[in-house]
Amino acid sequence: MFQTFDTATSPEQGPPRLAALRADMTRLGLDAVLVPRADRFQGEYVADRDARLAWLTGFTGSAGFCAVTADKAAVFVDGRYTVQVREQVALSDFTPVDWPATSLAQWLKRSLAEDAVLGFDPWLHTVDEITRLSRALPRLELRGIDNPVDAIWTDQPAAPMAPIFAHPLEFAGEDHAAKRARLADELRSAGEAAALITLPDSVAWLFNIRGGDIPRNPIPHAFALLRADGSAVLLTEPDKCAGLGDHLGADVSVMPPDQLADLLATVEGTLRIDPSSAPQALIALAALAGVNLSHGADPARLPKAIKNPAELQGMRDAHLRDAAAMCRFLAWYDAADQTALSEVELVVALEGFRADTNMLREISFDTIAGAGPNGALPHYKVSAESSRRLEEGQLVVLDSGGQYPDGTTDITRTLVVGQAGAEETRAFTLVLKGMIAMSRVRFPRGVTGGHLDSLARYPLWLAGMDYDHGTGHGVGAYLCVHEGPQRLSRTSDVALEPGMILSNEPGYYREGAFGIRIENLIVVQEAAPVPGGDARDWLDFETLTWVPIDRRLIDTGLLSAEEREWVDSYHAACRDKIGPLLSGETAVWFASATEKLD
Amino acid sequence: MFQTFDTATSPEQGPPRLAALRADMTRLGLDAVLVPRADRFQGEYVADRDARLAWLTGFTGSAGFCAVTADKAAVFVDGRYTVQVREQVALSDFTPVDWPATSLAQWLKRSLAEDAVLGFDPWLHTVDEITRLSRALPRLELRGIDNPVDAIWTDQPAAPMAPIFAHPLEFAGEDHAAKRARLADELRSAGEAAALITLPDSVAWLFNIRGGDIPRNPIPHAFALLRADGSAVLLTEPDKCAGLGDHLGADVSVMPPDQLADLLATVEGTLRIDPSSAPQALIALAALAGVNLSHGADPARLPKAIKNPAELQGMRDAHLRDAAAMCRFLAWYDAADQTALSEVELVVALEGFRADTNMLREISFDTIAGAGPNGALPHYKVSAESSRRLEEGQLVVLDSGGQYPDGTTDITRTLVVGQAGAEETRAFTLVLKGMIAMSRVRFPRGVTGGHLDSLARYPLWLAGMDYDHGTGHGVGAYLCVHEGPQRLSRTSDVALEPGMILSNEPGYYREGAFGIRIENLIVVQEAAPVPGGDARDWLDFETLTWVPIDRRLIDTGLLSAEEREWVDSYHAACRDKIGPLLSGETAVWFASATEKLD
Repeated sequence: MFQTFDTATSPEQGPPRLAALRADMTRLGLDAVLVPRADRFQGEYVADRDARLAWLTGFTGSAGFCAVTADKAAVFVDGRYTVQVREQVALSDFTPVDWPATSLAQWLKRSLAEDAVLGFDPWLHTVDEITRLSRALPRLELRGIDNPVDAIWTDQPAAPMAPIFAHPLEFAGEDHAAKRARLADELRSAGEAAALITLPDSVAWLFNIRGGDIPRNPIPHAFALLRADGSAVLLTEPDKCAGLGDHLGADVSVMPPDQLADLLATVEGTLRIDPSSAPQALIALAALAGVNLSHGADPARLPKAIKNPAELQGMRDAHLRDAAAMCRFLAWYDAADQTALSEVELVVALEGFRADTNMLREISFDTIAGAGPNGALPHYKVSAESSRRLEEGQLVVLDSGGQYPDGTTDITRTLVVGQAGAEETRAFTLVLKGMIAMSRVRFPRGVTGGHLDSLARYPLWLAGMDYDHGTGHGVGAYLCVHEGPQRLSRTSDVALEPGMILSNEPGYYREGAFGIRIENLIVVQEAAPVPGGDARDWLDFETLTWVPIDRRLIDTGLLSAEEREWVDSYHAACRDKIGPLLSGETAVWFASATEKLD
Repeated sequence: MFQTFDTATSPEQGPPRLAALRADMTRLGLDAVLVPRADRFQGEYVADRDARLAWLTGFTGSAGFCAVTADKAAVFVDGRYTVQVREQVALSDFTPVDWPATSLAQWLKRSLAEDAVLGFDPWLHTVDEITRLSRALPRLELRGIDNPVDAIWTDQPAAPMAPIFAHPLEFAGEDHAAKRARLADELRSAGEAAALITLPDSVAWLFNIRGGDIPRNPIPHAFALLRADGSAVLLTEPDKCAGLGDHLGADVSVMPPDQLADLLATVEGTLRIDPSSAPQALIALAALAGVNLSHGADPARLPKAIKNPAELQGMRDAHLRDAAAMCRFLAWYDAADQTALSEVELVVALEGFRADTNMLREISFDTIAGAGPNGALPHYKVSAESSRRLEEGQLVVLDSGGQYPDGTTDITRTLVVGQAGAEETRAFTLVLKGMIAMSRVRFPRGVTGGHLDSLARYPLWLAGMDYDHGTGHGVGAYLCVHEGPQRLSRTSDVALEPGMILSNEPGYYREGAFGIRIENLIVVQEAAPVPGGDARDWLDFETLTWVPIDRRLIDTGLLSAEEREWVDSYHAACRDKIGPLLSGETAVWFASATEKLD
């Protein structure tokens, strides 16, 4: 079982650790220090060793940071975590701060003298982050220091050492020499000698490798130096690479991360770093090595996002397998005594059905299983304490996914306990209308996710309803389930290109009552021409996810003829694709679940 | 009659003038010069004196520029003008260039030595423009010179001297002292001593004045210096201000534009300019005057766009009057022997009906009247030569507007000659569906025109169709019909706010065959709450334009029940609002044109 339901921290742990930290601050002459929930790689998950924010404060959320002064300790968290933080930290010592409504700079301005000294670990903050902070507070001294938590964390876990393994060409679709040559071309035309790639999923994509240093994302802790001649250095502990054999070949060497400074000194010419993810520590390191930095996008960013035919085929295969597991789960759920079940039991059962495929390497993220009011928290993480027993008439938001050798899945279905009320059915149907609008769209090249996002909201908007998250995120191929740069979100300005994978997941959340979300993964593809249509470069979406949408939650009176037709043809495609994989009780359930709408 | 149909230039005029320009270039040691279609004010229209591009090349389009070297003369025009430019310039001497596909920098790179000298009039190019050019071609010398066309244009018209007049408080809604105080507040909080406002519609808005120095836009050629204490200087020829009486008051002085350098020298502290519109000449002028420049948005940009209740009431009133004129025109057209009419005759008749209101100060822009294939050119400008006689079954795109003392109108209706074909009717209905979707939308605060644009395209996109222009532009209140910063366009990132006026004008254009456009003006407003909806800050659109949409062009089978209901209630509102203004034959026509859909 990958998912756990324990709460590993307690509010009591924080105050003595905070006192120890402050003693060190005084010794070092610092007026404040920052403790972010981040490692050198700026991803969504950190290893146990890097869970410094949780260790210091008790707060275990996936984003946030603590700013400590001599008399204050502010824990900055966003809207997802305002309730959780108050339960997890000792409020006697820590003060939750609503972020980004209050920015770090604003808080520091109020809490420190103008020329105070702020200590921070330059490996844990990006170049952009520190630049912004120093622009906002020009007189504050930002002093790079050794990590202040590591200095007092006596039983800190060791750094992860999960073996790195090759990602087969069958699934990667392009060997790493070809990838390196493509990216090196771009460096040469930008007049750059090399790029330091600091996002581990870019490194994993570039070398066709995978790892296991953090939960959920199959990536190693690693940087890479790619030179304009296509040769490269994988910066990671060599011991992790024992099983790689000759996968890396002659043009790629492995070097321990602590030799980065020496490596930088060998770069003749300009070195590109991506300031939105590269650690600030690189600035000093590069200056020391005498290398000239240029700021540019991670060169793997777009190539990684635009999946090739083999990656797309792997994603399709993984989704069929995952859909069969989901259907077995849904059939089991429908036959169960539902009000005897808890949220935790749903999560356990679902992971079990995925594990039964014998192909599950990991789950894509902690399954969100929110019943009734818990479903109204879009990013709810169920624990043994929070787990609710299902109640008659409730909706359950179930958002989950699997990491398989050939692909990553992410699907949300909304379940009902018994019979849903009219309000829930209406809201579900409005969410479905938006999800259908996005599934059906065709659009010319150049359109971004920021342009499309409102299509999924329009039916809700007309009813005075909305949801406080983007409509979708990019998805990796047996990589991170949240992958940039493309998104279906108002803030996205990246033009959609064939091969980009996105989630399509509108929702609706009524605080204290219920939540709804419906999510399929979709792929941008070149669209077949419409007879009589314009001669343009048209794109549309291929659907990857084939799991029935609960027909009992649909108010067919609210659907247009085209929307009904979409639901029926979606279910007909489910029958074609998933039907052959099912048998017994599941097949019986499936036949009924995929019938035409009344 | 405001609109004319003559073509005032001929291709023959260009070559001798080009030769004279080149002789001066040689004398001055220049390798190239730029001749833009621009004046100091960077608007859409120029005075005759400033029509240097047309004088030199023969090209009369509303955007473009000419780059002249010793052996080449490139006329850069966008997709609207690729046909027109080839008819208007002598192709022996001038080479049309497809812009922005080929940028000026690319062309100069190919056509000049790296360290060549390029002469330009620094009053006719913005700070941003010159900055971009010098970044793209760092070794090129960009030399500010006296205008090279003025030097050879012996019979150049004089600068316009139209009188400036007060815009009554009844329509402006806020006196100019209050406006100056509001903007001065912003300057003070930005730590700036003053702002130089170079957009004449911002100047007109700020002082509640109007002018007539260019066609179509009721604005004077003027800059303004606004100080952080709220006092201001109107930089324009004092002779234009004779009729202003004491409208400007004690805190506003008038100064001729040639005293700008002296005025700048009086600024103590930082002076804001908007680099997207301010002429490059200001950089040298400010340096000479010893004043420190900061780059920021024109402080009037947003306040001007967010109309106050008096401005909105004026716009409503102007639209009722204009709708009555449009209805008289449409009734006349329906009763006419249509195939005996020409495009020019439609324009003449329509301007006549507007003039009959006795309130028409100007037309908002040259009326677009495109029959059949001419309708497929979205920005078609009819001339005596191009004017087509209407033919049975054709569609006519008719896009027009009036400038009234209380407001500016802009409306497009698509007319049919006799009976439309099935393809035209289907396309019209798809365009209408998009126009209805935008009219009906409700959205939370923070949403931009870039987010909404696709709602109007969705029905067309599904059919493989699209249009190559934004869905809408901002509109001024008895000011410029094209006004920023808000737009309904993929490139817009300005959040919509109550009081902003936009056009809603999706279209469809089939090259060589027909065009369709349907346009109403709409205003962003706070939306009434929806029972049971979310407690958010909802916005929606109030409609300003009340003219029947031709029911004979609607394929009702393609409309949803909600869309039919929208058309019927739109026509019912037309009856309420415009019916009382009509009589006789027009009233009979109107009663039939506003009947419910079958």
